[in-house]
Amino acid sequence: MTEFTDALADVVAATETALLKLIPVNEGPESQVFQAMRYSVMAGGKRLRPFLVIASADLFNVSRSSSERVAAAVEMIHTYSLIHDDLPAMDDDNLRRGEPTCHLKFDEATAILAGDALLTLAFEVIAHSDTHDSAKIRADLVLEISHAVGAQGMVGGQILDLFAEKNILGMPEITRLQRMKTGALINCSCQSGAILGKASETQRHLLNAYAYDIGLAFQITDDLLDIDGHPKELGKAINKDTKAGKATFVSQLGVERARSQAVILTDQAIKHLDIFGEKAGLLRDLARFVIERDN
Amino acid sequence: MTEFTDALADVVAATETALLKLIPVNEGPESQVFQAMRYSVMAGGKRLRPFLVIASADLFNVSRSSSERVAAAVEMIHTYSLIHDDLPAMDDDNLRRGEPTCHLKFDEATAILAGDALLTLAFEVIAHSDTHDSAKIRADLVLEISHAVGAQGMVGGQILDLFAEKNILGMPEITRLQRMKTGALINCSCQSGAILGKASETQRHLLNAYAYDIGLAFQITDDLLDIDGHPKELGKAINKDTKAGKATFVSQLGVERARSQAVILTDQAIKHLDIFGEKAGLLRDLARFVIERDN
Repeated sequence: MTEFTDALADVVAATETALLKLIPVNEGPESQVFQAMRYSVMAGGKRLRPFLVIASADLFNVSRSSSERVAAAVEMIHTYSLIHDDLPAMDDDNLRRGEPTCHLKFDEATAILAGDALLTLAFEVIAHSDTHDSAKIRADLVLEISHAVGAQGMVGGQILDLFAEKNILGMPEITRLQRMKTGALINCSCQSGAILGKASETQRHLLNAYAYDIGLAFQITDDLLDIDGHPKELGKAINKDTKAGKATFVSQLGVERARSQAVILTDQAIKHLDIFGEKAGLLRDLARFVIERDN
Repeated sequence: MTEFTDALADVVAATETALLKLIPVNEGPESQVFQAMRYSVMAGGKRLRPFLVIASADLFNVSRSSSERVAAAVEMIHTYSLIHDDLPAMDDDNLRRGEPTCHLKFDEATAILAGDALLTLAFEVIAHSDTHDSAKIRADLVLEISHAVGAQGMVGGQILDLFAEKNILGMPEITRLQRMKTGALINCSCQSGAILGKASETQRHLLNAYAYDIGLAFQITDDLLDIDGHPKELGKAINKDTKAGKATFVSQLGVERARSQAVILTDQAIKHLDIFGEKAGLLRDLARFVIERDN
């Protein structure tokens, strides 16, 4: 796994460099919103989605100058979703990655606007000609990503998640919720790499299947960490779902079956990568990392 | 003005038809977010920005099927900004166009997410090939609009507006605030028409100057209506700025000078349209409408 650890560290460094470059520090009274944007995007995190963009694009020898910009844009969207999810009217969280959430560090209005601005900036970055010479590829990226993160995808999943706090969901509903709330962005990270690489339909389909499986495995692992992780390593409160009485994969399947389900999904995800041969080594390693991580 | 009134009514009808078509009513527990999106986009309003997109595109004989989609997308962004501005953490407004604001009609979480989803959907609509055959034009539209409504534009203006509640601004700061908060979207509505129409640099520059002037005239008129408009016709509370002790064009210039300044700006805006000849009739009428309206 050393090669993987190094690759992940490279992605983290490249993504953070890109984010700092793309989020300027404006002078004047509005500088607060830029500070809040930077604070939240630089608060750490595994940079899993940027990794998926870059590793998927690498399959097709896409220039890193392209994939790193798209990776940064996807991470901006992920960060916007966390800032808004943490708001008092939503999950009302105080800690994110061990640090005060955006609305506590700044204020609620600034947090709402910093989220709005990050979402907007993501599309500006993607649409810019620096991202790719081909306008077709840029427009396709905007289309793919906006569809994934809107009301039919990530935002819809967040509404389902709020619904789940007051209603008991069964396995099909929990799966659908996860697929929308976290799966859509994970999936479109891989698809973004495929779009940059002008992948064939078959290649896109297989990356889609891979992303779907690791997305579920990722969520199951999150649910497991919520019941037996360490708050310090996680950088957030644990037992949140249990306390909220929320149905999760673990509450439905039990710990042992959930754990083995995550392993099955990971093996299945790795199988989808067969046609990519050795080039897909990092995506295989990532699939294993998703269920072995402790935060 | 009958021709103008008819044209405006046409734009309102076309925009509302497009909005209803573009915002589906999903089944399932997430339908609430779609209902909130529809509620807010269908709550009326002058549809000034869609009119600017369509009338600017008409200068270049752009197909209405293109300009109406972009007009709807711009109206989605305008609506998202109103929903978020009305939130308790921001302006904390109860009424918008005579109806309960989105967070009162639904709840705060739904309002935040409906705003997020409208912003996202706007970019999805623009990037879709139904908007224009040319991917270059679609990518250029995404770039222009995202830049206008992000932290350097509309969102930045909203932060300045919150700052203005606690600090006394002078004329240069008020002008800058207005330019960002409302001017940026008005301006990019005209620029969107120009991009669709493959306008020359000179044509874009003149439309930019026109939009800048009517944007300021629009804001001055808003400030005047805030002090002597009728709440019923406005569909919102009046004297808000005075009560909040906020510096506006009117508080700085006085009513008479503000009124004559709006007239000067309108005349100036109309002059910028000279090169477009008779085709710009509707844009000229709109400039006059902006300062003569009573809501």
